Amino acid sequence: MALSARNRLRGTVRSITTQGPIAEVVVDVDGNEVAATITSDSVERLGIAEGDEVTAVVKASDVMIAT
Amino acid sequence: MALSARNRLRGTVRSITTQGPIAEVVVDVDGNEVAATITSDSVERLGIAEGDEVTAVVKASDVMIAT
Amino acid sequence: MALSARNRLRGTVRSITTQGPIAEVVVDVDGNEVAATITSDSVERLGIAEGDEVTAVVKASDVMIAT
Amino acid sequence: MALSARNRLRGTVRSITTQGPIAEVVVDVDGNEVAATITSDSVERLGIAEGDEVTAVVKASDVMIAT
Amino acid sequence: MALSARNRLRGTVRSITTQGPIAEVVVDVDGNEVAATITSDSVERLGIAEGDEVTAVVKASDVMIAT
Amino acid sequence: MALSARNRLRGTVRSITTQGPIAEVVVDVDGNEVAATITSDSVERLGIAEGDEVTAVVKASDVMIAT
Repeated sequence: MALSARNRLRGTVRSITTQGPIAEVVVDVDGNEVAATITSDSVERLGIAEGDEVTAVVKASDVMIAT
Repeated sequence: MALSARNRLRGTVRSITTQGPIAEVVVDVDGNEVAATITSDSVERLGIAEGDEVTAVVKASDVMIAT
Repeated sequence: MALSARNRLRGTVRSITTQGPIAEVVVDVDGNEVAATITSDSVERLGIAEGDEVTAVVKASDVMIAT
Repeated sequence: MALSARNRLRGTVRSITTQGPIAEVVVDVDGNEVAATITSDSVERLGIAEGDEVTAVVKASDVMIAT
Repeated sequence: MALSARNRLRGTVRSITTQGPIAEVVVDVDGNEVAATITSDSVERLGIAEGDEVTAVVKASDVMIAT
Repeated sequence: MALSARNRLRGTVRSITTQGPIAEVVVDVDGNEVAATITSDSVERLGIAEGDEVTAVVKASDVMIAT
């Protein structure tokens, strides 16, 4: 599936912390930590677990620049 | 400034492509490319240029996970 | 590719209107119009054209409810 | 109220699943399922229930295109 | 129209700067400046002009907190 | 830290309501209420409490205009 979202950061799931409806998935991308808050349902639907290879996907318009 | 947005990816500006009101800023984060579309005004306001050290900031709720 | 974004609306590209860096892609989803503003680069990268079958993808957290 | 958000998908509430602070509202739009995660407070404030006619509102910049 | 988006900031349009497909609408909210980048089409569709009373609408999940 | 996000609304924390993983932070900005839903972790990380001076930060592309 090709997607218009511009950013694809391939990495390994370091942790999944589920708290009620929300889950925080932390992905290790070449030593950088990228955290995603998705629904717990999505974690189940995707069937992801610690150690899995995943891609963190982000629209370029959702990325801010700080100096 | 501490910010509630969870993700801070430190890197070097590889390119800034301005097209009318929109600019695409591509940041090299340890070999990973992170692109931000921000307004051309923001590029000017931040005074950023190719080679600068910047931080790509992303809310965890704006990060999707793909398998 | 499985993606954490919850909404997948399958339809046909009705029009693509490019204006500088931004393109508006209108998708006919069973008679409902769904418009996406993506970058012109994404239109090229995806290689989409009028009449193509595509999927409009939306995170559930980006959907508002109005009464 | 006219709103700059471009997409208005009229449909019927099929389900409302509340889990702590978050509620998932699933709207049937001509046979297509559109899910919104909004706060439980918003569900109360809007006073919506299963079977109600509502509009799913989405900014065009929040819609991605996949092929 | 009641909307699940939580924030409604009533104010006066101070300026509208259109640049190709994108328009920046600056709203004066009790002396605070709130800027929205919307499509030029939306400006036309809403028929807004400098001096008009409008409401800046923002989802609570799109608001970040900085200290 | 300079940030590409355009809107900075300085105000006082009026309330923080934590419910599991999500917290709603309401900021009084010159008599206007601005609500942010951020993660409970972020509230802790920022160390904010009622009465604190904070800034509500919003990307211009996340602001909608209603008439």
